[in-house]
Amino acid sequence: MKLSRLGEDRTVAALVRRLPAGPDVRVGIGDDCAVIGEPKDEQWQLLKTDCVVEGVHFLRSAKPADVGWKALCRAISDIAAMGGTPEHALITIALPRELDFSWVRELYNGVRRAARAFDVGIVGGETSRSPGPIFINVALTGWVERRCCVRRDRGRPGDVLFVTGHLGGSLTRKHLTFQPRVSEARWLTNHFRIRAMMDLSDGLAADLPRLAEASKCGYELWPGQIPRTRGCTVEQALGDGEDYELLLAIPPKLAPDLEKRWKMRFPRLALTRVGVLTRQSSRNTPHSARGYDHFAQP
Amino acid sequence: MKLSRLGEDRTVAALVRRLPAGPDVRVGIGDDCAVIGEPKDEQWQLLKTDCVVEGVHFLRSAKPADVGWKALCRAISDIAAMGGTPEHALITIALPRELDFSWVRELYNGVRRAARAFDVGIVGGETSRSPGPIFINVALTGWVERRCCVRRDRGRPGDVLFVTGHLGGSLTRKHLTFQPRVSEARWLTNHFRIRAMMDLSDGLAADLPRLAEASKCGYELWPGQIPRTRGCTVEQALGDGEDYELLLAIPPKLAPDLEKRWKMRFPRLALTRVGVLTRQSSRNTPHSARGYDHFAQP
Repeated sequence: MKLSRLGEDRTVAALVRRLPAGPDVRVGIGDDCAVIGEPKDEQWQLLKTDCVVEGVHFLRSAKPADVGWKALCRAISDIAAMGGTPEHALITIALPRELDFSWVRELYNGVRRAARAFDVGIVGGETSRSPGPIFINVALTGWVERRCCVRRDRGRPGDVLFVTGHLGGSLTRKHLTFQPRVSEARWLTNHFRIRAMMDLSDGLAADLPRLAEASKCGYELWPGQIPRTRGCTVEQALGDGEDYELLLAIPPKLAPDLEKRWKMRFPRLALTRVGVLTRQSSRNTPHSARGYDHFAQP
Repeated sequence: MKLSRLGEDRTVAALVRRLPAGPDVRVGIGDDCAVIGEPKDEQWQLLKTDCVVEGVHFLRSAKPADVGWKALCRAISDIAAMGGTPEHALITIALPRELDFSWVRELYNGVRRAARAFDVGIVGGETSRSPGPIFINVALTGWVERRCCVRRDRGRPGDVLFVTGHLGGSLTRKHLTFQPRVSEARWLTNHFRIRAMMDLSDGLAADLPRLAEASKCGYELWPGQIPRTRGCTVEQALGDGEDYELLLAIPPKLAPDLEKRWKMRFPRLALTRVGVLTRQSSRNTPHSARGYDHFAQP
């Protein structure tokens, strides 16, 4: 069966069955990052890999420094989504022979800028030729205190769902210049019992069902409440993807305190209730927006 | 300047200047792996990223299970080259929409077989669409005892150079089915003071100068001594690449003992003296074979 028919989620689900993990793997495939460590260690290591591909995640006409920023910051956003701090990165690039060196130099300037901004060490890399598009892969390590580590599969019915920032409109330059929410996630996990969290990369309409399913919950989404980037419709806010904002679930009695303290700590970034987790049977997916599927026909 | 004119080594050298690393980075860009840890830690972590690209490292007609084996084993070979043990892997795949799922399933069967053979946990992955060739990236962690960690830049004039196995002929199926030398490297670093080591991925003619330059040495290579795969010329043994054998430098007075004990421990795998490291000024590069450069014109 062609991948375009099977779709991304089913392809991944079929592939990762029966893969050997290991006794020190606290969280394996299926969350934003892998979590490595013994159950009682004070700190755990986070591991993440991610790629950007020309023609899928960026166009050749994009500023190469923006592409480098995006390549590293996507992985940083996943480390943030676990409550962690990014640490060391390895960069793989596959490049066409006819590419000009100045493009690659600018790409690395963007990578370096992101590395400095989030205190990431670039410790290795690999260079290959590509007979087609430019490929950039980032492997990133990080760490998180055990008590701050947040998975996506621990949400419970009744938990309130919040998102940071505003959603939609990623196809403007935003998808190349976003800010991963590292300090926001660190603050959240240090001060509140966050039950479940993930970063929004494929759009709320695709990502919320993943968080709910992992947590064995249903969900209720309130479309009118979704914070939209200026000029965006609800459909766009649900389905554009590449927001790199946080989606989190928190016990309802903590929600008012969170809202109050968030406003004082991050006055310039919205934090908005968009729904609740429910019992599994109940599913409320308003609108037809479906989020991004890599293998779906355009 | 086009990458094809600049060449691979000069491209990489220009890119990695001024990249931030970090205080806990023992070995950064330029060796087979990055080495992370405090100077006095008993164990250090190894980090490696590596990719295989359709049309560069394999053809679509190759068995996908072989491609999966190769993708993971290339990175395992780099962990071995530092004296380390591989641990956790993250797999990124970028795939054309029209690809059949059975191809990807077989690819993962090869990855799984290699993971089992070398006790590697597959802890994460990422799937993307590719508008061109199939692209597979492996990020791999490992560990090494501080006293067993071997870099490529500690060779000294007078050290004897050895290679394991037989070189050349990679364009037969060998480049897809090779065995990374993990147990051999572990034995070497546990029993001998190996001064410098690396794995041979681009051919002895390209890789030996890298080891010598990193060690601030020259070298003398004895072409008549190079162990050749059956049917291969000296040129092919020097330049085909993708041997994934070990190249190592050892103090001359240890060499006879190494040869004797190796034969008893690994009777079915050759270990051959191929030259010596010399003072920097002396450089003896016989033959015109140059090894593999990703960006050179074919």
